[in-house]
Formats: sequence, structure tokens, C-alpha cells
Amino acid sequence: MSTQPGDHPQILTYEGLRALVAGRRSVRRFRPDPVSRESIERILDVARLAPSAGNSQPWEFVVVTDAAMRSRVARAAASLFSAGRKRDPEFNWSISVQPFLSQAPVLIVVLGDRRVMAAYPSILRGNILMRQSLSNCVLALQLAAASLGLATAWGTLQGGSPESEIRDLLRIPDAFTIDHIVPVGYADEVECARAAALAPARERASRRRPLDAIVHWERYAAEKERSDGAVEQFIWSETVTRVRRADSQGR
Amino acid sequence: MSTQPGDHPQILTYEGLRALVAGRRSVRRFRPDPVSRESIERILDVARLAPSAGNSQPWEFVVVTDAAMRSRVARAAASLFSAGRKRDPEFNWSISVQPFLSQAPVLIVVLGDRRVMAAYPSILRGNILMRQSLSNCVLALQLAAASLGLATAWGTLQGGSPESEIRDLLRIPDAFTIDHIVPVGYADEVECARAAALAPARERASRRRPLDAIVHWERYAAEKERSDGAVEQFIWSETVTRVRRADSQGR
Repeated sequence: MSTQPGDHPQILTYEGLRALVAGRRSVRRFRPDPVSRESIERILDVARLAPSAGNSQPWEFVVVTDAAMRSRVARAAASLFSAGRKRDPEFNWSISVQPFLSQAPVLIVVLGDRRVMAAYPSILRGNILMRQSLSNCVLALQLAAASLGLATAWGTLQGGSPESEIRDLLRIPDAFTIDHIVPVGYADEVECARAAALAPARERASRRRPLDAIVHWERYAAEKERSDGAVEQFIWSETVTRVRRADSQGR
Repeated sequence: MSTQPGDHPQILTYEGLRALVAGRRSVRRFRPDPVSRESIERILDVARLAPSAGNSQPWEFVVVTDAAMRSRVARAAASLFSAGRKRDPEFNWSISVQPFLSQAPVLIVVLGDRRVMAAYPSILRGNILMRQSLSNCVLALQLAAASLGLATAWGTLQGGSPESEIRDLLRIPDAFTIDHIVPVGYADEVECARAAALAPARERASRRRPLDAIVHWERYAAEKERSDGAVEQFIWSETVTRVRRADSQGR
């Protein structure tokens, strides 16, 4: 396929980027092999270049490699998982990243400095802008890791007791949110395949709705609108978060 | 520099990705040259591969190329800008993307289907998860555009009357949020340079805090903690959103 001419030099092929984004996936089983400090620094050097609202760069990172500390952080994060399982038993908790965090040789805890919200205009919701910025940072981080052959996952925290515990463990000041924990390491492909076989919803993670179904030209095309029933059906068949009883062994 | 060995094939060099992320920037001045439908489809084909909470893929896209409609959408978005300027005169409104939207030959309106929040566990705030997912989508979209030599910017909406107006114009169903409008086109480098000369804060957009200042090993390093005063200073000198009177001609 030809590429478009433009003022910018062609710094990367479209095909290379597409393959990188398509190949990125959440890995929950890691080999114990360590990751070099140089690799971590290179990954974070891309993460810090992510776009943020007003260039506010809310992110800082705590990199945890110490095995005992990784276990403690993972245990704190996993309490979200246990509480969630009680409250929402229909959810496919087999996809949860938290119980596997301790396996990865490196945990990158992504902090958000709430104080930068003062940079945003008061007419917009700063909380959303900050969290969008942090998401950009995590995606850039994950793509950089993938470009080095390293696997990651996206562990979400949202306040509550796991956040307080991790704050204490890592001595994180109160000004920071602790929204994301990204495990980094080399994928254990054998264990990944075994886990996928036990969790039927897992393979859905790489599926996407076809382009034509989600693109509207000039105006929203009413004939493409999903009914509420179609969205419900999509959630149960195409997301990774819900599994019918028949294939819920992974729970 | 050597790259790490790993189980994944080396589908893209780290250096190529870093250059792409570093080179991405918000462009507000576009040449009138059209963008091919093929290019738009290729860009959205990467955007749809972005990671989302539970693979919920909340995104759909309305692509607007019709000049009259672009003007109307841009005018609706710009009303956010005018209202904001009254409410928050200290903000550096010269960086606002909204007043330039009509210049771009293509506007991609990124919709978020609120109904997919039913896929998320009730223990997490679905609103945040959905908006993080949409941010991932916009970043992937922008990187794909950059890989084709196309310029973009990030126009933010958050509800209110601009959203209602755009909803009516593009016949967008109520189930969707309209958070982001991404103009796409070829940068008008002459006009970009002229505008940058008038808006001193603009060049800050590519600056980032140094890696060492934002990375903590094993625990948060108290000696790196910014005081409230340092954050305030950072907002006024390193973000693009605040300018001191002396260099505020761009306002």
C-alpha cells in the first residue's frame, strides 16, 4: 500500500505501528527472567512523551523490582479482586490482572499528581482530563515495552483500601492518585496458552468490531445504531468481562 | 543501541516508536488539501485496535468532510472556548483547538457508547474506565495519522451545550458521549510557525520533565517530591495553559 506524502518525514511505517498496536495484549503469566534497568528507563522515556491535557504531565513512576515488595503490592491490589468477586459474581474475574502482579519481575506503579489539575480551565472537569492523560501515558508505556519484546498488562486501581495500602508500602505522597499498575516482563507463553485454554473469554481480548460497523460518514448512520439488546449481546459475547455459565470454568 | 531479546517478534524498532511519539504534536493550522478516504480508514483501523477496559470498545466515529458541516461543528465547539474565556481569563486560550477545527479538511468526532459500562465490574467507576478507553483510542488514532504524515490535534468537549448542538447536527444518538474531536489534515507549517511566534507558551508543548525527576526506584524518593510551590511554578512555566502577562500576547 502506498503512504501519503506529507510535510513530516516518514519516521515509522504505518504497517509497523499497526502491527505493534495489534500485537499488544495483556499478559498475566511471566517468566522469572529479570528486565534490565536500561530497558525500564527506555520504556519510561517513551511514556513521559505521551500527550497530556495542557502538557500537564501528571505522571510519575515507582518501579518495584524487589520480590518481597512486589508480593506485598500484589497482595494489596488483589484485595480489590476479592472484594469485587463478592459484589459482582457475574463478572469474569479470571481476566483480572491483580492476582498475577507478583509474578512479573517488574511492577511499574503509575502515579498521577492531582495538583496539576490547577493547569486546566475550570470549565472542564479536571479529574477526567488528568485520568485521560494518565491513560495516554500507560498506552505509550505499553507500546514501548512491546517494541522491546516485553509483555505488559493493565492493572487498574481506583482509590479505596488497595490504594491506601500501596501508598503506605511505597511511601507515596497524598497528592498522587495510584490508578494503574503495569507489570513488565517476558511472557511465559506456555503458561499463557494453558490459562487461555481454561478461560474461554480470554481469546476475545484481541477481537474488535469491524471498521464499517463503527465508522459513520458525514452523519451518524441510523441503520448502524445498535439496539440495547445488541449491546447486551455484545457485552456477553465480545468483551472479556462476562461469561455464560457454560464456559465460565475460568472463574 | 541493542534491543532486548524476547518471545515476540521484533515488529517495530523502539527508536521508530519513540520518534513517532516524540514527533506527535497538536497542529492548529492546516492546509486545505483533502485527505483520502483510504487514509482515514487506515487511521481508524488502528484506532479501533486500541486497548479498552474489558475489551469494551466504547468508540464509534463520525467523519465529517463536508465544509459547511465542518463549520457548523467547529462553531458549536468554539462556544466552549468563548464561555471558558469569560469564566477563566487567566487560562491561555490561545492554545485552544476549537477555533481552528473548521480549517482542517477532516474532523473525526469520537463517540463513546455509555451502554458498554455494563461490561465493567460495579466495584470500579465505569465512567472513568470508559473515558480512559476513549483516550487510548484517540492516542492510537493520532499516532496512526502521524505515521502517514498527517497532522492532528486533540479537541476536548465535556457535555454542555456544545455537545447537544453537535449531537443534533450529526444526529448522534443519546447513548453516546461526544468527548473528543480530532481534526486531521496536512500541517500548514508556515502558519504554524507564525502562530507559534505569537503564542510564546506554544513551544512548551514538546517539553517534558526529565526522566530522573519522575522515576522512583523501589519506593517514592522523598527528595524528588515537588513542593506545592514547585508545582505552581511548573504550571506557569512548563504547561501550555498559563502565561504570565509579559508574554501573553497570544491570548
